[in-house]
Amino acid sequence: MLIGKGEKLVMIGDSVTDCGRTQPVAEGLFDPLGRGYVTFVDALLSACYPELGIRVVNMGNSGNTVRDLQARWTRDVLDLKPDWLSICIGVNDVWRQFDIPRQTEKHVMLEEYAATLGQLVSTTRPQLKGLVLMTPYYIEPNRDDAMRMRMDEYGAAVRQIAAAHDAHFVDLQAAFAPLLEHVHSAAISWDRIHPNQTGHMVIARAFLKAIGFSWTGAPA
Amino acid sequence: MLIGKGEKLVMIGDSVTDCGRTQPVAEGLFDPLGRGYVTFVDALLSACYPELGIRVVNMGNSGNTVRDLQARWTRDVLDLKPDWLSICIGVNDVWRQFDIPRQTEKHVMLEEYAATLGQLVSTTRPQLKGLVLMTPYYIEPNRDDAMRMRMDEYGAAVRQIAAAHDAHFVDLQAAFAPLLEHVHSAAISWDRIHPNQTGHMVIARAFLKAIGFSWTGAPA
Amino acid sequence: MLIGKGEKLVMIGDSVTDCGRTQPVAEGLFDPLGRGYVTFVDALLSACYPELGIRVVNMGNSGNTVRDLQARWTRDVLDLKPDWLSICIGVNDVWRQFDIPRQTEKHVMLEEYAATLGQLVSTTRPQLKGLVLMTPYYIEPNRDDAMRMRMDEYGAAVRQIAAAHDAHFVDLQAAFAPLLEHVHSAAISWDRIHPNQTGHMVIARAFLKAIGFSWTGAPA
Amino acid sequence: MLIGKGEKLVMIGDSVTDCGRTQPVAEGLFDPLGRGYVTFVDALLSACYPELGIRVVNMGNSGNTVRDLQARWTRDVLDLKPDWLSICIGVNDVWRQFDIPRQTEKHVMLEEYAATLGQLVSTTRPQLKGLVLMTPYYIEPNRDDAMRMRMDEYGAAVRQIAAAHDAHFVDLQAAFAPLLEHVHSAAISWDRIHPNQTGHMVIARAFLKAIGFSWTGAPA
Amino acid sequence: MLIGKGEKLVMIGDSVTDCGRTQPVAEGLFDPLGRGYVTFVDALLSACYPELGIRVVNMGNSGNTVRDLQARWTRDVLDLKPDWLSICIGVNDVWRQFDIPRQTEKHVMLEEYAATLGQLVSTTRPQLKGLVLMTPYYIEPNRDDAMRMRMDEYGAAVRQIAAAHDAHFVDLQAAFAPLLEHVHSAAISWDRIHPNQTGHMVIARAFLKAIGFSWTGAPA
Amino acid sequence: MLIGKGEKLVMIGDSVTDCGRTQPVAEGLFDPLGRGYVTFVDALLSACYPELGIRVVNMGNSGNTVRDLQARWTRDVLDLKPDWLSICIGVNDVWRQFDIPRQTEKHVMLEEYAATLGQLVSTTRPQLKGLVLMTPYYIEPNRDDAMRMRMDEYGAAVRQIAAAHDAHFVDLQAAFAPLLEHVHSAAISWDRIHPNQTGHMVIARAFLKAIGFSWTGAPA
Amino acid sequence: MLIGKGEKLVMIGDSVTDCGRTQPVAEGLFDPLGRGYVTFVDALLSACYPELGIRVVNMGNSGNTVRDLQARWTRDVLDLKPDWLSICIGVNDVWRQFDIPRQTEKHVMLEEYAATLGQLVSTTRPQLKGLVLMTPYYIEPNRDDAMRMRMDEYGAAVRQIAAAHDAHFVDLQAAFAPLLEHVHSAAISWDRIHPNQTGHMVIARAFLKAIGFSWTGAPA
Amino acid sequence: MLIGKGEKLVMIGDSVTDCGRTQPVAEGLFDPLGRGYVTFVDALLSACYPELGIRVVNMGNSGNTVRDLQARWTRDVLDLKPDWLSICIGVNDVWRQFDIPRQTEKHVMLEEYAATLGQLVSTTRPQLKGLVLMTPYYIEPNRDDAMRMRMDEYGAAVRQIAAAHDAHFVDLQAAFAPLLEHVHSAAISWDRIHPNQTGHMVIARAFLKAIGFSWTGAPA
Repeated sequence: MLIGKGEKLVMIGDSVTDCGRTQPVAEGLFDPLGRGYVTFVDALLSACYPELGIRVVNMGNSGNTVRDLQARWTRDVLDLKPDWLSICIGVNDVWRQFDIPRQTEKHVMLEEYAATLGQLVSTTRPQLKGLVLMTPYYIEPNRDDAMRMRMDEYGAAVRQIAAAHDAHFVDLQAAFAPLLEHVHSAAISWDRIHPNQTGHMVIARAFLKAIGFSWTGAPA
Repeated sequence: MLIGKGEKLVMIGDSVTDCGRTQPVAEGLFDPLGRGYVTFVDALLSACYPELGIRVVNMGNSGNTVRDLQARWTRDVLDLKPDWLSICIGVNDVWRQFDIPRQTEKHVMLEEYAATLGQLVSTTRPQLKGLVLMTPYYIEPNRDDAMRMRMDEYGAAVRQIAAAHDAHFVDLQAAFAPLLEHVHSAAISWDRIHPNQTGHMVIARAFLKAIGFSWTGAPA
Repeated sequence: MLIGKGEKLVMIGDSVTDCGRTQPVAEGLFDPLGRGYVTFVDALLSACYPELGIRVVNMGNSGNTVRDLQARWTRDVLDLKPDWLSICIGVNDVWRQFDIPRQTEKHVMLEEYAATLGQLVSTTRPQLKGLVLMTPYYIEPNRDDAMRMRMDEYGAAVRQIAAAHDAHFVDLQAAFAPLLEHVHSAAISWDRIHPNQTGHMVIARAFLKAIGFSWTGAPA
Repeated sequence: MLIGKGEKLVMIGDSVTDCGRTQPVAEGLFDPLGRGYVTFVDALLSACYPELGIRVVNMGNSGNTVRDLQARWTRDVLDLKPDWLSICIGVNDVWRQFDIPRQTEKHVMLEEYAATLGQLVSTTRPQLKGLVLMTPYYIEPNRDDAMRMRMDEYGAAVRQIAAAHDAHFVDLQAAFAPLLEHVHSAAISWDRIHPNQTGHMVIARAFLKAIGFSWTGAPA
Repeated sequence: MLIGKGEKLVMIGDSVTDCGRTQPVAEGLFDPLGRGYVTFVDALLSACYPELGIRVVNMGNSGNTVRDLQARWTRDVLDLKPDWLSICIGVNDVWRQFDIPRQTEKHVMLEEYAATLGQLVSTTRPQLKGLVLMTPYYIEPNRDDAMRMRMDEYGAAVRQIAAAHDAHFVDLQAAFAPLLEHVHSAAISWDRIHPNQTGHMVIARAFLKAIGFSWTGAPA
Repeated sequence: MLIGKGEKLVMIGDSVTDCGRTQPVAEGLFDPLGRGYVTFVDALLSACYPELGIRVVNMGNSGNTVRDLQARWTRDVLDLKPDWLSICIGVNDVWRQFDIPRQTEKHVMLEEYAATLGQLVSTTRPQLKGLVLMTPYYIEPNRDDAMRMRMDEYGAAVRQIAAAHDAHFVDLQAAFAPLLEHVHSAAISWDRIHPNQTGHMVIARAFLKAIGFSWTGAPA
Repeated sequence: MLIGKGEKLVMIGDSVTDCGRTQPVAEGLFDPLGRGYVTFVDALLSACYPELGIRVVNMGNSGNTVRDLQARWTRDVLDLKPDWLSICIGVNDVWRQFDIPRQTEKHVMLEEYAATLGQLVSTTRPQLKGLVLMTPYYIEPNRDDAMRMRMDEYGAAVRQIAAAHDAHFVDLQAAFAPLLEHVHSAAISWDRIHPNQTGHMVIARAFLKAIGFSWTGAPA
Repeated sequence: MLIGKGEKLVMIGDSVTDCGRTQPVAEGLFDPLGRGYVTFVDALLSACYPELGIRVVNMGNSGNTVRDLQARWTRDVLDLKPDWLSICIGVNDVWRQFDIPRQTEKHVMLEEYAATLGQLVSTTRPQLKGLVLMTPYYIEPNRDDAMRMRMDEYGAAVRQIAAAHDAHFVDLQAAFAPLLEHVHSAAISWDRIHPNQTGHMVIARAFLKAIGFSWTGAPA
């Protein structure tokens, strides 16, 4: 288990991360972390590693692109002084290209996406004990779907940035693949982006695998 | 224009038809027909053919399968004594097979679908001046998608029933195809079933084409 | 079809245009254009001309007179950089003279109306590819009704301004006339201003006719 | 003043009478009589004739035609054992012919109207100390308007029934005429049926005039 | 009738005047004047004197004392440029002495009351065509009740100020007296301050009497 | 202290007792006893005599007269098998005679009041360990006020019934007297019936005094 | 993994199970299983064993004791024809003895509890492929706390019933113990019964351990 | 009775004091003091000592620690110029150490607590006629519970500060002890902090005892 005793993990992203979390900073009493993977991560860490007392903070904001992350980075990441940071961004950067194709000013194209994410990562990495980068995804098994193809390109950019900056890489698109062998995407998500609780557990599990989590807790 | 002066058109179906219509019978004051294709059909008929005074009644109910139509057929169709009837059913019959695959008791399989719809049509057709059957659809251009394939089978059943009972046939799956050449399905519908207003206009236009509607109204 | 590929059409006006549109700028996801003619225009353009990808933006504000348009012109028209602009204003300028006759400070008299609208048009026209001016109207067939008479005078002013500035002119009062030959105004509007969906389709159709729209889309 | 000490006056009708009155029987504490002419009648009677202690009961129901009155006559009139009764019905009987012209089953034509009202009056009159019949009206000065013409016919029927059964007759259409010489109908009512408070005072005043009310109360 | 054609009457006061009026300035469409005497005054003036077109504006604010009037006098009276002004203040000045006797900082004692009201009146009177001063009141017939006694003192102060500044004086305490000969105060008001609609008609009638109102309108 | 260990005290009455209690039976978790004297009684008994574990049940219903108590006596008193019962009824029996004087069918006159209460008491007393009868009251120090006089008559009837059936008698009218020597009734109650928390404490204290309550709890 | 392909697991209990689940039967779309351990169980089973398609149904009802389970057993368990059943009941049976000690009729004492649960289990077990019995618990580490002691007795009864009827036994009290070595009970639950998401994961984990669940899914 | 005629008592604290009080300053009409001990104190003082007219002001704010009191001390205490002041703070200072143990920045440790409270007391005491310091408490009889132990340390600090500054000391932890001999803490409070009305009466009684209150009022 890579995260250490009393360390703080901030998880930032878009609506997939947000899931109705408490504003402005989601941590603490009354289950403020929203109904998504962040709550699963926190509950599993606390239930399996009670001796570690890891702090989990949800800073996801619905609708965000990497542009929005950049705009709130100081207040919502740096000022919180995380030990660990996870970033899951890019879904909206791509989606807007397909659901509002006429409004090009709201599209974050690949070059801008990669440059912005890279810049955020490179300046922040030195202050972190650990960093996890999760890819955007599209719960669509057809690799020829135009939006899936685009999403895969953004995922590839995340992989490169992770490799370049000593970050743990989580391929969420790949994490959904086994599930899609057994059920249609309609059973996980009505819009192929926002998953049900099963889909959020897929995300949580992929994240936890990357940080060396064990279901049975720490070895004695 | 096939529908005549003062005739009543009842449009029945599921949520695509319902769209927030007034209960129990949607006709009359205060725009009760919902925010979907039925309102478009009514507004276009009234604006282009004011001399005909055609009555449009929306009897769609969200979530309905053909089983549900059968259960409410007497009260919601026969008792209203329509001159014209349009039926658009099947989306949920198929969808439930994919979004809740474990709950098989809620799946209406093809054989039951075709038999039930056929029985409703055959007993009702003699009392109607005109009947329009619209296919279910899935706003997914990939013909290999499992749910699209299934939906196509249901659409084929509708085509057969229409042919057998002197009904006008409207292929909604085909109606969406030109649009999907220019935009991704995400631009029309988040779940590939419930369209935005543009998608509802596609449905309305396909329906109106089938009944000989002219944008410029009746010839002088 | 006069509006070209990817061009942006801004439609500004009062409550007839507004119809519950999203604030501050209505364009994009989740059908933000309100329940009126703007949605009809957008849905018909998108359904019939999917290859054009025309952007439709609703900037109507309930209760507005031409004074209010002037006050928000920079932010709500110029800053949006439209290619095409449609203006439908004047109903409230006249109506207030009749429904609150004692509060003369809220009446926008003909001279002020024509001067203000003319000034907005003359300074904006050079930046536009196309401009559409729609008349105010009163859904009252009696030409001797005092408010109808006044509305006709404002409509005549719009006609003059359109002619002077190379704008497409849409006579909405005339557009309602055929409908009123078949139904009483009470069947279209309770207050003879705010139409039902049929009346909004009458407006949309008059607008679309002015810009060369074809129900069957672009010629092959 | 015709109504005597401690007598009960029941006022029945449609939405013009209802005005948000308390259900099922509107009398008593907390101003239950709605925001219309019934409250004005009650307040004026109580303020000017405190020594009489007249009971005023509002039994108007929005949307009612004379058919609806007939259906609830026993419970809503006879069971209350009024000394005086006022009836103001017919607006919806006529209006539906014009605002939903296609739904003819909801039209109460003149013959049925007169017959039903006549029957209610003839059987009830013997049990009453006094009866007041008020005409329906349309706040439209143009006598050639189709709906105004029809409303005038219904008013004429009320006049005949009043004459035939010893009822006080109140011509509300006539009562609005002086006001319309000074203001447009738009200043009194947006739909030419539901008046503002000024219009309700016109109704109350016409009613009170018919029963011998004096603004200065009873003579010493 | 003292108020002339097209003149504006502003009525200011506390909750008895306010009665749910529209903020910030109550005049115009949709019956904005609240459910109290101001609406009665307006409806009676408009119904009986339609040819005068008098403007009635309700500027009452719930909970106000004369201190509060002073604080908002410029914005809420002078800026509106009334021709006629009516003031009904003092209820809360007295009431707070009795319902929160410990919080003496909220009591407006007689000397302050008279001085403040006198100052407002003396500086404003020259700009008015007419001024009406109405007394505070307590719907309690027992002249020995401590709060009634105090209220009477404030009423006497109003009378003096009216006499000194050429204002019409309305003794509301006296206006309620005839009603209280026939019913208990509980039948008019639960707290002996806020009257029901009958009580508001008593106030309206007393006011109208002071300005020469006639129920039958202007003499021919 | 007369009430014994584990005994159940049911308190029945009108809105003074009800105070927003939980329906249908108010006892137990989450402070269900309402914001009035019943909560004070319960809290004081539990805090001062924790060893007794007395059950307090609030069965007050707003608006009730003794007629209403009679109608629900079996379900709301007898079926609960109380050891002790307190009754506080009569306020509405009297009040309706004054606030809706015209609606005589809602007045419960003295004879009926005394007979009904007497009958309930006489049949129930044998099944009780103790019974407390509290008088209705009117927080009005003027004994010549008509409603106060009537209330005193009803209070006298309660005193007689208590004497005749071995009940503890609580004179609530007398209990309020000392308070009214120091503050006006307006400081306790806006309508002279529904007291603020101070007034409810006056009631609770009078009740507790009757049953031998000691602020310092049971003697050692 | 003991539960097999396509089998149905019904989980019944009180508010700890309910957690806002959908009524009347919680299964299927839109995450209907509530915010507690049932959702965790379902999400983990579906994410880790997608090939099994296990159906999870939440039938918990807030406030239930074993008496309530008995009353709804046929409709809520037997009629659903589960393959597997889990029961978690007893918290309220004990809690009511401590939070409303005076209302003994709401206490389900140990003998009744054991007899009722035993009867339900013995008659149902034959129809099940598997049964899981979970103990009630009190998140209080002090074994001398009166309520904890009582809860332990009920837990012991569950253990005996499980042993007697071939059920899997889950000791939830024991499951919370490791967590309480590191945090105070206040960090898991405000009332020591309803856990936060971490506590629910503790329950889910204990349940899953009993049925042979593996975090890494089925062995290849 | 130590508090004198017309003196003002301000009671400040956290949610135990707040209980839904009116913001920003809770005093006066409509029972603004919340549903807790402050209302009980006020009602008992007013009912038993009506001649004193003591002013009670609730300034509790939910969630407050002593840090929060310090931040709002000037506005919420000094500016109100109290004669008497009661402070009940510390519950949250301790609780946060146990319910969000990971968020150490929200813990107010003993040293800071004592220093801050001491500073507030020492600077304010000279301006007061009397000061009452109440301890924080934990309704948990087990003295070995970690949170109870910590709370006892904070209570000891309060005792020292009271002794050092001539303040009346109220040991609320001790006040709850007799009650806990008869009922489990679950009968008073679900979270062992927020008491039901019985628990609030325990607090009110302990406070009143400290200031020489007598249930029978002032001696004659």
